[in-house]
Amino acid sequence: YLAVLALSSLGLMCILFTIYWMRYWHSGFAWDGTVLMFNCHPVLMVTGMVVLYSAASLVYRLPQSWVGPKLPWKIGHAAMHLMAFILTVLGLFAVFNFHNHSKIPHLYSLHSWLGITAVFLFACQWLLGFVVFLLPWASLQLRSLLKPFHVFFGASILSLAIASVVSGINEKLFFSLKNGTSLYSNLPSEAVFANSTGMLVVVFGLLVLYILLA
Amino acid sequence: YLAVLALSSLGLMCILFTIYWMRYWHSGFAWDGTVLMFNCHPVLMVTGMVVLYSAASLVYRLPQSWVGPKLPWKIGHAAMHLMAFILTVLGLFAVFNFHNHSKIPHLYSLHSWLGITAVFLFACQWLLGFVVFLLPWASLQLRSLLKPFHVFFGASILSLAIASVVSGINEKLFFSLKNGTSLYSNLPSEAVFANSTGMLVVVFGLLVLYILLA
Ligand code: HEM
Ligand code: HEM
Ligand code: HEM
Ligand code: HEM
Ligand SMILES: O=C1O[C@H]([C@@H](O)CO)C(O)=C1O
Repeated sequence: YLAVLALSSLGLMCILFTIYWMRYWHSGFAWDGTVLMFNCHPVLMVTGMVVLYSAASLVYRLPQSWVGPKLPWKIGHAAMHLMAFILTVLGLFAVFNFHNHSKIPHLYSLHSWLGITAVFLFACQWLLGFVVFLLPWASLQLRSLLKPFHVFFGASILSLAIASVVSGINEKLFFSLKNGTSLYSNLPSEAVFANSTGMLVVVFGLLVLYILLA
Repeated sequence: YLAVLALSSLGLMCILFTIYWMRYWHSGFAWDGTVLMFNCHPVLMVTGMVVLYSAASLVYRLPQSWVGPKLPWKIGHAAMHLMAFILTVLGLFAVFNFHNHSKIPHLYSLHSWLGITAVFLFACQWLLGFVVFLLPWASLQLRSLLKPFHVFFGASILSLAIASVVSGINEKLFFSLKNGTSLYSNLPSEAVFANSTGMLVVVFGLLVLYILLA
């Protein structure tokens, strides 16, 4: 299927661009509470809460999932969302840990308010999906009643994640490009590159939402 | 209709919060190229490209529009979108003019790249909608072929506008709250107020998208 290939490449590019941005302009990664640990935050958020999240959400859009038994697809859907959620939590841990070490307060920016809301809804969605759709107790009526809300919240969480990525990239560039010739407003190469990464994530997200809601 | 009332109040609150933010913490408005002219930018963008835009898009969701002749509703839809577009262009003019006067370069931030993309798509959408749906030449087939794209782009443009508002509020707070006790990270009252305004716009936008796409 050509569409799957195109979308996967686009998602992969979002991840690779973010990694390249952090490696090339911000000295790469570590897990030690320094700014190198912060650098894991953008990569883990884009990988977990945008790309893997999208892949997990689109599982039922594969024609293969429409035939044969449903349970394996459900388990796949839930397991992929669980992995996406684990990467998301690691990404949050990276930035919280960096803030602790650098004595920066938590949860002050609109970026962080929106981001934490998205992650909170993600957790609720996972628990509710697990309890209602995977555990065997729920009746068919309850499931079909909740399904449209499940889909709508799934799409909303992705939208919030995209808005978080955009505001995050934007603020990081204002932080780091503020002196001398490499002012953000002079549009140095890092700014062009990271702005493009942001636009790429937006295009990817809109395509996923289109396939999801069409 | 209770839902209309609730949604209108929420939209009105988004506008009033933005005005209050600019009046109370940024000395209000003017049309003179100073930062007081910049202050018109957030208000006009939220009013035009979020609230009026949403009202215009939801016109066909009113049960009243499903009976009787369609033309008056079409004209209303197109006229409201035209007004929304005019406010949007005035809002852009406010910030471009301010940048000219203060010798700040144009279109460097991810906020501005995303924003200008949203406005460009808005213009295309208006022209295409006008040519295909309002002028009498297009066949029924063409119209029903284009309609799902019209709706999808309509929803995408609103999503981009929401992401622009979030990144705009976020960066404005990093600009203006950077010295002494009123650091953004100390979460002074302006930060709480403007973050809340941003969250309000997000909630409003998600509700509109839900009604639009449900
Ligand atoms: C789904 C995506 C994302 C979510 C949910 C998210 C969430 C968060 C949260 C909750 C915080 C607050 C941490 C604390 O207060 O200790 C934060 C901080 C931060 N994030 Fe993200 N983030 C996302 C993507 C990104 C991306 C792609 C970047 C790009 C560089 C980024 C840059 C930042 C920066 C610079 C901070 C520290 C300043 C602040 O608190 O606003 N974020 N993020
Ligand atoms: C945070 C985690 C989750 C998210 C974001 C999410 C998202 C989604 C989305 C977007 C859809 C719509 C797919 C479509 O319409 O084709 C969907 C469908 C579904 N999800 Fe989830 N989901 C999550 C967790 C779960 C879990 C844990 C289960 C448990 C098995 C589950 C079960 C289902 C089922 C049964 C459907 C309906 C498929 C159908 O009949 O078309 N979801 N989910
Ligand atoms: C739909 C909503 C919005 C759109 C489409 C939008 C679009 C734009 C554009 C195109 C620019 C570039 C102007 C130039 O380069 O001369 C800009 C600048 C700016 N906007 Fe917005 N804007 C929106 C909402 C907001 C909001 C709500 C705020 C909140 C204060 C805001 C704050 C700013 C700031 C501080 C700048 C100057 C710095 C920069 O170029 O990023 N914007 N906006
Ligand atoms: C940028 C401007 C525009 C935007 C953002 C926009 C947005 C939308 C949206 C979101 C819908 C979906 C409503 C629904 O499904 O209930 C819609 C429907 C429609 N729009 Fe527009 N529109 C724009 C301009 C126009 C113009 C200029 C016309 C010309 C008359 C037009 C004609 C229509 C028609 C005929 C429908 C279909 C109504 C139906 O049969 O359900 N639109 N528009
Ligand atoms: O990456 C970051 O940069 C700023 C600060 O360290 C100034 O550079 C901050 O809060 C981050 O999370």
